[in-house]
Amino acid sequence: MAVALAQSETVRGTTSPNPPVGAVILDADGVLVGRGATQPPGGPHAEVMALREAGERARGGTAFVTLEPCSHHGRTPPCTGALLDAGIAAVRFAVADPHPLGAGGAGVLRAAGVDVREGLLADEVAGGPLRPWLHFVRTGRPHVTWKYAVTLDGRVAAADGTSRWISGPASRAEVHAIRAAADAIVAGTGTVRADDAWLTVRDADGHLASRQPLRVVVGTGGIPENSRVLDESAETLLVRTHDPDEVLTALTERGVVDVLLEGGPTLAGAFVAAGRVDRILAYVAPSLLGAGPAALGPSGVSTITEAHRWRVEGVTMSGDDVRIAAVPLTGEGGS
Amino acid sequence: MAVALAQSETVRGTTSPNPPVGAVILDADGVLVGRGATQPPGGPHAEVMALREAGERARGGTAFVTLEPCSHHGRTPPCTGALLDAGIAAVRFAVADPHPLGAGGAGVLRAAGVDVREGLLADEVAGGPLRPWLHFVRTGRPHVTWKYAVTLDGRVAAADGTSRWISGPASRAEVHAIRAAADAIVAGTGTVRADDAWLTVRDADGHLASRQPLRVVVGTGGIPENSRVLDESAETLLVRTHDPDEVLTALTERGVVDVLLEGGPTLAGAFVAAGRVDRILAYVAPSLLGAGPAALGPSGVSTITEAHRWRVEGVTMSGDDVRIAAVPLTGEGGS
Ligand SMILES: NC(=O)c1ccc[n+]([C@@H]2O[C@H](COP(=O)([O-])OP(=O)(O)OC[C@H]3O[C@@H](n4cnc5c(N)ncnc54)[C@H](OP(=O)(O)O)[C@@H]3O)[C@@H](O)[C@H]2O)c1
Ligand SMILES: NC(=O)c1ccc[n+]([C@@H]2O[C@H](COP(=O)([O-])OP(=O)(O)OC[C@H]3O[C@@H](n4cnc5c(N)ncnc54)[C@H](OP(=O)(O)O)[C@@H]3O)[C@@H](O)[C@H]2O)c1
Repeated sequence: MAVALAQSETVRGTTSPNPPVGAVILDADGVLVGRGATQPPGGPHAEVMALREAGERARGGTAFVTLEPCSHHGRTPPCTGALLDAGIAAVRFAVADPHPLGAGGAGVLRAAGVDVREGLLADEVAGGPLRPWLHFVRTGRPHVTWKYAVTLDGRVAAADGTSRWISGPASRAEVHAIRAAADAIVAGTGTVRADDAWLTVRDADGHLASRQPLRVVVGTGGIPENSRVLDESAETLLVRTHDPDEVLTALTERGVVDVLLEGGPTLAGAFVAAGRVDRILAYVAPSLLGAGPAALGPSGVSTITEAHRWRVEGVTMSGDDVRIAAVPLTGEGGS
Repeated sequence: MAVALAQSETVRGTTSPNPPVGAVILDADGVLVGRGATQPPGGPHAEVMALREAGERARGGTAFVTLEPCSHHGRTPPCTGALLDAGIAAVRFAVADPHPLGAGGAGVLRAAGVDVREGLLADEVAGGPLRPWLHFVRTGRPHVTWKYAVTLDGRVAAADGTSRWISGPASRAEVHAIRAAADAIVAGTGTVRADDAWLTVRDADGHLASRQPLRVVVGTGGIPENSRVLDESAETLLVRTHDPDEVLTALTERGVVDVLLEGGPTLAGAFVAAGRVDRILAYVAPSLLGAGPAALGPSGVSTITEAHRWRVEGVTMSGDDVRIAAVPLTGEGGS
């Protein structure tokens, strides 16, 4: 299952609105004979990819899949059928399919005499590659990760508005990897005006990755025509609103499931106030500014007892910076 | 040496301007027969305390001491003499004495035929209990730890000035332990006016500890006569200045070596700008406010390239909070 999980990691950002799933086939002797991951929408699912590689060796074998195999005809035939046709004897999956149409695959397989078990690495999969999609299925809204780089005194830019580079090279490389796994990168008009950022995925040498997430700029005021975010390197959507839910609706219509909110503080404040941030990724750089905008703008809190409460999910070093991941303390979507 | 280090931890905050030292005596067979730590100024040093407990069993034994034994007559006779009189055969110490008067103890002992070795747990001792004192000997200034509790968006209070409790119970208990080890707790008049804090060491039930650090309030404007910081529970010094160095000079005159700067942002900004913060202890609580004062006020930085750079020394969880310790990236005293 760890191999299936790793397979699914490789296709994050390419499968939405479908989930990034990984699959592995062992033959009857337990030898790994096939690996696969979800292809872009309309393409084969992970199980089918893995079965293709395994061919006849799948007969009597075991399939490991990160998500319960689907049993319905969507744009592709059901995976349960493909597994049965291939003569798979046993199926192990990590996470049950919560999707109203998809669920039931385990039952179909069991009815056909397949030995089915679920739950292997369920937490790792549900908290990892499948998290945005599971959130989307549960809430109908894309999953939003708010990522920011901040000093030890909570500033995201200096007094003159300059903000590069608050975080170090390791964090910046990590952010490009996180962008690559997202469906869309969202920023406010203020950030685009101040930083003239590209909001693209680039490697260490500055070269553009072949696949780019959708760039989204939120605000009513518009941005200069020669803004870098309007260049040819990726698609860009302007959403002329101040309402986070309107932004999320527009993104849902474009098949976006996994959103990376990159700020700035005003837009992030609106998302937090609306309970529309599902995860925080803070890169805390060991520096001090003593002036400049704080990480979060107005979010509806005026006294300490009203503070939005979160739970730290993990703390790691990212080069010289401290990376803090946090999730809402209770229920869905923050506060 | 680990036992000697633990001994020295127990007397932090009670020995200044002398260093908090720990000592252990093993007899000739390697059995622990004596333990000791520096007594308050004028009282015996650690070696003497440990030798007293060991008595005649010290003869032919080994002494472990966190700091090189002194060889000069101060308020107490030299420890080298006490060790030689007791018939100690071997001495192990962690850190050499940088003090112009104290150094040379190792040489005196070696000349008398004692087997002397240094360096055992040197980093742990020099970065731990002896750090403030070593800093003081090197620079002539007390060591300043700036401690603050901050939200994930860098606020130290809400928009209405309320700030209790930003951090959780585990962090607050930890802060009382840190206060207990300090010689003085420093805050600005703004913090005293806003929070009416006691700035005392209390246990989990709110009872006052028997020993209290000096309370220091900095500012020209004064504070209300009925401020809690002026109560009977501990001594309080008002320093009517805005200059961090004048504060440190006043503290040096009172024998203070280890300072805990508790803010607020304005005073902390002045200390950072002057390069007078030697260590940062940030308790980052997983909450968001979106408004309210940021952790640090003006510190002489207007653009990102001028940011004060630090190095993360350690990151730990403190209950639900993230504790980040940092030291200046280069040289003494920050920036
Ligand atoms: N370190 C980091 O991680 C990081 C990340 C991003 C930005 N920054 C820094 O943040 C600063 C920019 O801050 P900012 O707050 O101006 O950026 P912002 O949040 O990106 O943009 C604010 C603008 O977005 C529009 N907007 C969208 N939704 C809104 C809402 N609900 N309420 C109000 N306005 C809304 C408004 O412009 P319209 O008039 O167009 O509607 C508003 O002026 C820059 O200095 C930048 O360097 C730092
Ligand atoms: N979460 C935390 O860890 C924490 C810790 C402390 C405070 N706080 C919060 O911080 C807020 C208070 O902030 P603050 O900045 O007013 O507090 P502050 O730094 O304690 O006090 C500021 C005052 O100190 C005096 N002062 C001393 N040195 C100065 C200098 N070099 N430059 C200018 N003034 C100097 C000035 O008053 P004079 O007119 O008297 O000279 C100034 O108004 C409160 O809301 C409090 O709750 C939070």
